[in-house]
Amino acid sequence: MVNDMQTPVAPLWIDRLAIVGVGLIGGSLALALKRAGVVGEVVGIGRGLENLRTARSLGVVDRFTQELEAGVADADVVFLATPVLTLPQVAARALPHMKSGAVLTDGGSVKASVVAAIEPLLPDGVQFVPGHPVAGTEQSGAAAAFPTLYEGRRCILTPTARTAAAALDLVARMWQTAGSEVVLMDVEQHDRVLAATSHLPHMVAYALVNAVSACGREGEDVLRFSAGGFRDFTRIASSDPTMWRDIAISNRTALLETLEIFEATLAELKRDIAGQQDEALYEFFQRSKQRRDAIR
Amino acid sequence: MVNDMQTPVAPLWIDRLAIVGVGLIGGSLALALKRAGVVGEVVGIGRGLENLRTARSLGVVDRFTQELEAGVADADVVFLATPVLTLPQVAARALPHMKSGAVLTDGGSVKASVVAAIEPLLPDGVQFVPGHPVAGTEQSGAAAAFPTLYEGRRCILTPTARTAAAALDLVARMWQTAGSEVVLMDVEQHDRVLAATSHLPHMVAYALVNAVSACGREGEDVLRFSAGGFRDFTRIASSDPTMWRDIAISNRTALLETLEIFEATLAELKRDIAGQQDEALYEFFQRSKQRRDAIR
Repeated sequence: MVNDMQTPVAPLWIDRLAIVGVGLIGGSLALALKRAGVVGEVVGIGRGLENLRTARSLGVVDRFTQELEAGVADADVVFLATPVLTLPQVAARALPHMKSGAVLTDGGSVKASVVAAIEPLLPDGVQFVPGHPVAGTEQSGAAAAFPTLYEGRRCILTPTARTAAAALDLVARMWQTAGSEVVLMDVEQHDRVLAATSHLPHMVAYALVNAVSACGREGEDVLRFSAGGFRDFTRIASSDPTMWRDIAISNRTALLETLEIFEATLAELKRDIAGQQDEALYEFFQRSKQRRDAIR
Repeated sequence: MVNDMQTPVAPLWIDRLAIVGVGLIGGSLALALKRAGVVGEVVGIGRGLENLRTARSLGVVDRFTQELEAGVADADVVFLATPVLTLPQVAARALPHMKSGAVLTDGGSVKASVVAAIEPLLPDGVQFVPGHPVAGTEQSGAAAAFPTLYEGRRCILTPTARTAAAALDLVARMWQTAGSEVVLMDVEQHDRVLAATSHLPHMVAYALVNAVSACGREGEDVLRFSAGGFRDFTRIASSDPTMWRDIAISNRTALLETLEIFEATLAELKRDIAGQQDEALYEFFQRSKQRRDAIR
């Protein structure tokens, strides 16, 4: 199921928004909503005092606290923007302190493991809307946040059978106000589509750089001879190792399925190279080129 | 063995240069040498009359012919810039008509198969210097040629035991005059290094696009959800399928070795994901990131 929510946006107002993890993702959402004038107060919650002070001095948040429980207590919307493996424990601490009628949402790149961990913890009167804004840069921290990060980018929401329509509508309008195209998916579909289009390519890029290094003999630095194409191709292997370790583990079921499809595809190519199957090779490359050109 | 030939360049003069295949690669060499004033006459040789006429009207060549045998007869240097699989047959036709003292060189992306095919055909008095200018764009044809294509790019020459020093020196100075850094490698090393840094990444990119497409269920177009990282990563899958079919077949021995190293590296990663080996995964990604960052 994929639905694009492109209906006209009703007026949005959030009295108090708590951002847990005031980095690029959390801070940029705060800035976008403040700029749109749809939020009364933004409370920043985090562990690093220096980053929180930076966030306040830059106007990313109006006030901040290092106390998660106190910070979320009076918030109408709580956005969790911490690393994906930490989301269950952060939610477990925050949820008992959230007020009735409040909405919890998150920005995790993986959804099934997050939903499975958080939904059983939901108190009566608190709603959870799982989300994934598909955006980011190679920067991090509150100082990297900017209000247009989400403009023209997709934000995928993955409501479950327990998600109330009103809460989903509120979070969808929040992301639309930030400039995103909101797309609804099943949790399982989200993890499979992201495994294919994002997680698998990152795994392949990381593996390629390590494999090419291993092709050198007797201390030979073959990477010295890499040209522009290789550099573009492997830029994503410069991404944060901690984040990708967490994503690989959190989404391992869907990721392992895509890795198997990739291995089978590569094995087909290898067999055709070994057998000098010129027609099959041309067809393989041509098919790939056509698909790639279609998404330019 | 790798030697960078960075000794001062002695004056270079080529009375008559024949370019077989007047496209981006051949045409750009002609323009660079003409601009440097080191060539008396450039003869363009090709099959397509329209392309040859374009080449002459743009000043890429001074005259042209569709007769390979006649075109090479009075040339001092003959540069073969046709697709890599055609080089043996083009050389076989040209060599008996080249004059004594002339030098044959080429621009093929694969060297072992080219050297093995051409060296046995060399008449007395004609030298062959195998070469590979590591440059190119996504354009082709004489109209795409420009004199600065080779500036700052590497040109790999792979002399063999049969290559005379004077002929190697002449071809090296020719590429240096065109702006290239000339690097000497063994034929075998060239094919292995290029398999690792160029041919393997192209195979992986082509396979990745086809694998990601195959991850969609029931006609679902998962590529629709690909983001910027995927697009950058797979840009090289838009390369010419014919050229890559030819390279894959010509360099299959070295390429299959690198594919096996890549498969083993990917299998290690997959095993660590399945086993949730967080430390091993972090180390794998971190090692890759450090190597990638070092070639920025």
